[in-house]
Amino acid sequence: MSSATSFGKCGSVLVTGASRGLGLQIVETLASGGFSPRKIIATTRNPAGAQKLQELTEKYPNIHIVPLDVLSQESIESCVEEAGRLLQDEGLNCLINNAGINVVADFNTVTAEQMIENFHTNAVAPLMITKAFLPLLKKAASRGGAGGGGMGIQRAAVINMSSLLGSVELNWGDRSNTFKWYPYRTSKSALNMVSRCMAVDLQPDGILCMAIHPGWVRTDMGGPQAPLSSEESVSAVLSVIGGLTEKDHGSFLNFTGEQLPW
Amino acid sequence: MSSATSFGKCGSVLVTGASRGLGLQIVETLASGGFSPRKIIATTRNPAGAQKLQELTEKYPNIHIVPLDVLSQESIESCVEEAGRLLQDEGLNCLINNAGINVVADFNTVTAEQMIENFHTNAVAPLMITKAFLPLLKKAASRGGAGGGGMGIQRAAVINMSSLLGSVELNWGDRSNTFKWYPYRTSKSALNMVSRCMAVDLQPDGILCMAIHPGWVRTDMGGPQAPLSSEESVSAVLSVIGGLTEKDHGSFLNFTGEQLPW
Repeated sequence: MSSATSFGKCGSVLVTGASRGLGLQIVETLASGGFSPRKIIATTRNPAGAQKLQELTEKYPNIHIVPLDVLSQESIESCVEEAGRLLQDEGLNCLINNAGINVVADFNTVTAEQMIENFHTNAVAPLMITKAFLPLLKKAASRGGAGGGGMGIQRAAVINMSSLLGSVELNWGDRSNTFKWYPYRTSKSALNMVSRCMAVDLQPDGILCMAIHPGWVRTDMGGPQAPLSSEESVSAVLSVIGGLTEKDHGSFLNFTGEQLPW
Repeated sequence: MSSATSFGKCGSVLVTGASRGLGLQIVETLASGGFSPRKIIATTRNPAGAQKLQELTEKYPNIHIVPLDVLSQESIESCVEEAGRLLQDEGLNCLINNAGINVVADFNTVTAEQMIENFHTNAVAPLMITKAFLPLLKKAASRGGAGGGGMGIQRAAVINMSSLLGSVELNWGDRSNTFKWYPYRTSKSALNMVSRCMAVDLQPDGILCMAIHPGWVRTDMGGPQAPLSSEESVSAVLSVIGGLTEKDHGSFLNFTGEQLPW
């Protein structure tokens, strides 16, 4: 698999929200590929309840489950400590901010609390997690990576799982008449700005940062009528992530690799 | 003044955050123009402390101060009730969501609480206020307005005071190395999505909705080094708002009238 191949040059990956959906699929695809990262750190709020992730760990010893409640600063800091012990001097090559929720509400039903809940998990948490992992990302970036001084997952990268529904530009005409989810759309627009701000601030350290839309996928969140399977989406997403270079820094890409409008 | 002239066809305007800065200037410019709206509703969290606004009210009897704490649903609903009594059968022609804050924090200092605080005031409050004023906006829109069935402030419009700093596209290169305010930038990107979502949902009722950047202005928020005076900014902003038509529905405009990228 091309996606797994490209991750052969990446020493370590951390995926948030890895107990199900796209996060679980990312872990499985990475672990089962012929060129798996040396260390895959899979985080989930409740490891004890993550049956499928536990099963993967038994099969692939390079998967390490670490508890992480993305809404808790204390939990984020504990996660960084545990990841630091696992990664030691190598640092973290690739942080995938995948954990996300969809608080479904339209114009008539939406409340302030719903807006804030979705914003906190989808936009604020990736920021707080990236801040906390900065020392480990810097450590990896300063080692230069297999590809020398260039940017990419062989060195250090932050990947934010965004959504096409976060594109303000595309929320018009035909596209705007479905998925009128105020909390979700707004949280993903906010995540796109967070991603862009972080790209500016991480650039001096050689850490790549970008946002990606995984497509509309048949997960618990995407529902049964979505056109893509988790395997198809994740294979494409990992292929894009594996091929990222300087030119993709600060970008918003589709799972097909094309640029999306903000 | 051209800006005031164009508001002559607008029966009523409500401005949030009217005790100081751009909000206060909007009220003053509207009231002092030759063609002032029949009713200007100026809202502020604490009317008793709004000295300058009180003074304007003594001078211009078409200004009505109504208390509004944009973070409180109860306060929003009380404000709608009082506005309803003032406006009666005419409804509200123009809602200007101007109230906003700037929680200054960069990548190193920003906290989750700061992100949420700025998001709530700048992006969620305009949504909750617009929802609450929908019956009054619909009433005005259904009356058709001076210009017939077209869209504009003569009929019904929601104006969201956004910022160029909320443009993800423009947050790159030279422009990205100043004003690295995560909470503010993110809140304005979020407001842009809220504005676009509302434009989609308000369209069937003939209510125009758009976002505008007032320029960088010498207010308490903008600081003394900003290039524009409040008068210059507001004169330009009101001129743009006064000329809005269907083609501007769902847009993001500069105070000069040009379109901005999301």
